[in-house]
Amino acid sequence: MSGQHAPDSPVSETFVPSEFDLIARYFSRSAVQRADVVLGVGDDCALLAVPAGRQLAVSIDTLVEGTHFAPDADPRALGHKALAVNLSDLAAMGAEPAWATLALTLPAADENWLAAFAAGFLALAGQHGVQLVGGDTTRGPRSITVQVHGFVEPDRALRRDRARAGDLVYVTGTLGDAGLALLAQQGLFVGLGRVAGLRDRLDRPTPRLTEGRALAGIASAAIDISDGLAADLGHVCAASGVGATLHLDRLPCSPAVRSYVAETGDWSVPLAAGDDYELCVTVPAARQAAIEALAAELPAGLHWIGVIERRPGVRLVLPDGTLLDEAPAGYDHFARDG
Amino acid sequence: MSGQHAPDSPVSETFVPSEFDLIARYFSRSAVQRADVVLGVGDDCALLAVPAGRQLAVSIDTLVEGTHFAPDADPRALGHKALAVNLSDLAAMGAEPAWATLALTLPAADENWLAAFAAGFLALAGQHGVQLVGGDTTRGPRSITVQVHGFVEPDRALRRDRARAGDLVYVTGTLGDAGLALLAQQGLFVGLGRVAGLRDRLDRPTPRLTEGRALAGIASAAIDISDGLAADLGHVCAASGVGATLHLDRLPCSPAVRSYVAETGDWSVPLAAGDDYELCVTVPAARQAAIEALAAELPAGLHWIGVIERRPGVRLVLPDGTLLDEAPAGYDHFARDG
Repeated sequence: MSGQHAPDSPVSETFVPSEFDLIARYFSRSAVQRADVVLGVGDDCALLAVPAGRQLAVSIDTLVEGTHFAPDADPRALGHKALAVNLSDLAAMGAEPAWATLALTLPAADENWLAAFAAGFLALAGQHGVQLVGGDTTRGPRSITVQVHGFVEPDRALRRDRARAGDLVYVTGTLGDAGLALLAQQGLFVGLGRVAGLRDRLDRPTPRLTEGRALAGIASAAIDISDGLAADLGHVCAASGVGATLHLDRLPCSPAVRSYVAETGDWSVPLAAGDDYELCVTVPAARQAAIEALAAELPAGLHWIGVIERRPGVRLVLPDGTLLDEAPAGYDHFARDG
Repeated sequence: MSGQHAPDSPVSETFVPSEFDLIARYFSRSAVQRADVVLGVGDDCALLAVPAGRQLAVSIDTLVEGTHFAPDADPRALGHKALAVNLSDLAAMGAEPAWATLALTLPAADENWLAAFAAGFLALAGQHGVQLVGGDTTRGPRSITVQVHGFVEPDRALRRDRARAGDLVYVTGTLGDAGLALLAQQGLFVGLGRVAGLRDRLDRPTPRLTEGRALAGIASAAIDISDGLAADLGHVCAASGVGATLHLDRLPCSPAVRSYVAETGDWSVPLAAGDDYELCVTVPAARQAAIEALAAELPAGLHWIGVIERRPGVRLVLPDGTLLDEAPAGYDHFARDG
C-alpha cells in the first residue's frame, strides 16, 4: 500500500477552517489592545514587553469535561470560569493581570459553543484589561487550559512561604457558597430554597484581583481557596514551616451556608469545599490596624478567622470552644489512587 | 439527602497524593536552576525576571491522545516531543529558551508513565537550559499542554509578516522524514526497509534553536514546519501579503524520502506532511552571501528552495520544469468540519 494515505493521515487532510482561523475568528473581538503586546495571536510566538522593574507572574490551569464541568455546562460560564480560576492565582500573588494564552481541545468545531465560550472569556478579560495573546486549538475530549501572565513589584509578591508564627489569618468574601451550590446541583442538598443565588458563585467566580493588589506589600503570605480553606491554608503552613488555628465561629458565611451548617452540623462545606476562589492571607500582628482599615475598603471584605502558630498542622476551634486537632482535607484529583 | 456527599463531591475526597506532589515528585529532578527564576513550582504563580532590554516570546501547544499520539506511545518520547514542538516555536521566532510550564491531564496517576514522561521532558529541557517553573495536573483523557517562554532582542525577532517580494526561501534539515515514518507506522508504506532511522524524526523531533538564534536579525521572516512546508510557507505569505514559488528538485530530502518520491511520484510527503519541525525562513536577496556562509555552520544545514513573489499563493516548479499553480495543503485538526 506504499504511497497511500489513511483518512487520519496528516498528509491527506484539507485546510479549511484552520486552527488559526478558529482562534482568530472567535477571539479577535477582544476590546483589549495593550501597548505591551508587541505581537499577539497568529505568529509562532507572541512577543511581549514586561515593564522595567516588574517581575512576571505566571500560572497555568486546566478544566476538563467530566472532571471540572459537565458536558452540558453553559459555554459562556465556562469561558468566564476558565479565565477566572487563573486570574485568581494572580490575585493570590498580588499581581496585576496583563496577558492570557488559551489551549482549547474540542471534539468538533461547534461554532455556537465557541462563540459563547469566547464571549464569556473575553467579557472577563475585558473587565481586567487582559489581552489574549496566543493559543492552540486541537481535536479531542473537551478541555480548556489557560495561562495568565501578570506583573508584580519584586518586594511585594504574596508568596506562600512567608507566614510566621503570630501572624493573623484573614479571608475575603464568604466561604462554602460554591460547595453548597455543587451539592444542590448534584441533588445532594435540597429543600432550603436558598441556593439559587449561589449558582453564580460556582459557575462565575470573581477573581479577587483588587483585594490581592491591595494586600500586596501588607500581607506576609497568601493563597487562593480552590481546594478548600483548610487544605489551602495547610499549603501555606507547609510552605512556611508553621501551623494555624482557625475559629469556626469566625468563618464568613452567606445566610444559605450558615443555615446549612446550623441544620446539618456539616462544617466541611465552608472549610473544605473547593471553588470559592476567595483569598486567604496571613498578616503580621503589627499590621492589624492597617489591615482592618484596609478591609473596610475592599469590595469583598476581609475577615479575621485565626492565627498562625509554630506547631505544624491546621487546628479548629469549634463554636462551643472544643479544639479539633485536624481539619478535614480538600479536593484532590488523584486522591482515589493514593 | 441534605448534608450527604456524593463520592465525586469535592468535599468528600481525601488528599494523598496531591496534584502538587505529582508535579513536584516527578519534575523536581531538573538539573536546570536558572537565576532568573525567583519562584518556581509550588506557589500560586511562578515569579520570573525577564532580562532588561529583551522581549518575552511565548507559545502554547497541546498534544492529545488519539489525535497527536497513540495510547501506547512511549511516554519518554512523548515527554520529549511535548516540549520539542514548543521549543520549535521559540526557534522560529529566533528566541533563546528560558522557562516552561506543563498542564498534564491523565486518566490515572500512573507512576511508571509519569516517571518516563518526566525523564523525556527534563532531558530535553536540560539540553537547552529550560527550567520547568509551574504546572497543573488534572484527571481526564490524556493530554499534554506545554507553554514555553524565551527572550529575544526587540529588533531581531523572526516574525511571519516580514517576507518581501524578492526574498529567498530556505529550509533547515530535511523534509518529509516524519511524514514517511508516520505512513510506515500506519502500515501505509512498507517494503523499502529504510524508515527505521526516521522514527526518531517523528517521535523525538529536534527543535532548531541554534539555527533560529543564528538566523535572528538576518532572515526577514520565519516559521517552523509543523503543518507541512506548503501550508506553513503559505502562512508566512498570507501574513506578509506575498506569494512564493518553490522548486521541488531543491527540496532537501533524506535518501528514504527521495526513494519514496521516486517510486510513488507522491510529493505530498516532503511538501505537506507535518511534524518535521524544521525552520522555513525568507532572506533578503542582498544577504544571500551572508546566509550561505552561515548555512555551512548550522548543525541542520540550510537549503535554498525558492523565492518570494508579489503574487499571492504558493506555486511549485516540478522537476521537469512544469509550473503547478497550487500546492497541496497541510494538516488541520478541524478540516473535516469545514
